[in-house]
Amino acid sequence: MDILVTFDENYILPFKTMLKSFVASNSDTKNTFWLIHGGIKEKHLQDLKKFCNSQKTDFKHICISEKYFESAKITKRYPQSMYYRLLAAKILPKSLDRILYIDPDILVINNLKKLWEMEFPEGKVFAAASHAIIGNLTDNINKLRLDTDHSYFNTGVILMDLVKAREIVDMEEIIKNINESSDIELLLPDQDIFNSMYGKYTIEIPDELYNYDVRFYTAYLLNSENKHDLDWVMKNTCILHFCGKKKPWRSRRYSMFSSLYKYFMYK
Amino acid sequence: MDILVTFDENYILPFKTMLKSFVASNSDTKNTFWLIHGGIKEKHLQDLKKFCNSQKTDFKHICISEKYFESAKITKRYPQSMYYRLLAAKILPKSLDRILYIDPDILVINNLKKLWEMEFPEGKVFAAASHAIIGNLTDNINKLRLDTDHSYFNTGVILMDLVKAREIVDMEEIIKNINESSDIELLLPDQDIFNSMYGKYTIEIPDELYNYDVRFYTAYLLNSENKHDLDWVMKNTCILHFCGKKKPWRSRRYSMFSSLYKYFMYK
Repeated sequence: MDILVTFDENYILPFKTMLKSFVASNSDTKNTFWLIHGGIKEKHLQDLKKFCNSQKTDFKHICISEKYFESAKITKRYPQSMYYRLLAAKILPKSLDRILYIDPDILVINNLKKLWEMEFPEGKVFAAASHAIIGNLTDNINKLRLDTDHSYFNTGVILMDLVKAREIVDMEEIIKNINESSDIELLLPDQDIFNSMYGKYTIEIPDELYNYDVRFYTAYLLNSENKHDLDWVMKNTCILHFCGKKKPWRSRRYSMFSSLYKYFMYK
Repeated sequence: MDILVTFDENYILPFKTMLKSFVASNSDTKNTFWLIHGGIKEKHLQDLKKFCNSQKTDFKHICISEKYFESAKITKRYPQSMYYRLLAAKILPKSLDRILYIDPDILVINNLKKLWEMEFPEGKVFAAASHAIIGNLTDNINKLRLDTDHSYFNTGVILMDLVKAREIVDMEEIIKNINESSDIELLLPDQDIFNSMYGKYTIEIPDELYNYDVRFYTAYLLNSENKHDLDWVMKNTCILHFCGKKKPWRSRRYSMFSSLYKYFMYK
């Protein structure tokens, strides 16, 4: 599998945790991690390569100029690197025909081959999950706010058909959108841009399998009529997403999945 | 490392969970699991061997006659197989000079080599942990009840110096003790016998490292002046012991460590 990640130096530790969890359930395929970044120091890149190789995965990195995004919305929580995933189709080598983007605040706890091999229906270029059904109010507000008729997609996990994406992704348009967005109220900057530009090209995949928001265990349970309990999640869910401000690598507010997160963190 | 387990057919599932967790942190050594049992069906033994081999561990089993224990105390919670560990020194082949006994209701989450290689002081034959300090009242009562001057040891994890143990372990005496125990009030049958017969030969090892009782997270935290938080445990603790009646493979009462347990259970 080819996995795309985009982060800055502050996210090296969670990335390593994510990678360790990924490898524990996905060692039956040859895997390459592609990092698109805006200038991570050479010593860190060397360390990342060494780390990935020790985990039996390949590591490639592509540095893109930060100048593109000079005036894009950046906050501590939403660093510049979050925009790089939008440009993946234009930046990654032509030899790749699909890529799975994964946020670094994630644990992969089951095998991803089924997602990796999914077929895209006619007209669809991306696959992503929505968090609307579990009662994430923000997502519903976002859908209204952006005035779209499709789900509001979470961009933490995106499977991309790169062959098709190369046709529709317009680098200049994205950068223009980002740079113009300083005038608009963007709650979740890159996510808003992805949804407004590419939402219509996106097929929805189940969040309880591929983008489980760990803050909402009870909501998932109730929404599934008690089917999606902890046993179900551990057996079926592939991706646990540690959404929100309280990140498990720095917070002491523990949730249902903290012990699992810390296990991989210190592994 | 050589690991001893003793269980009946009801514990095959938790044993497999324990083994998977063991392998995840202990693949740097050649490992053999020794099962002493009282007649597990051949098809299950074949399945266990296949499973162990798939996890890159060796599997050997020794069947001992159940007749020895005909009148020993047996309840649903304390099956006959719990007594087998007491006899390990007499049953295991002479070629082994040490063995680490581990209960099946356990997760191994860090490397055990340091424990495996520990030196026994003069006069000590076993190494085990006590649960007294974390406020496990039963353990303190047991100590008074059995009138011993050493700690009341939990027998869920025991490192045995088999060379020395062969000299002091007396098979007939153990069986006599077990069979006579029907007249005495034994709260925790095999543990009482181990403590009264071999407690004086046992060196205490830290339970927060080698026999962490998962029911008492808060007690461990308070006893350590907030040092032993979840990060510390995941980084340092080698053995999480799911003590008590509520077993994680059948209970829906979740604790701090349930997600980690279920992860290995379905891995």
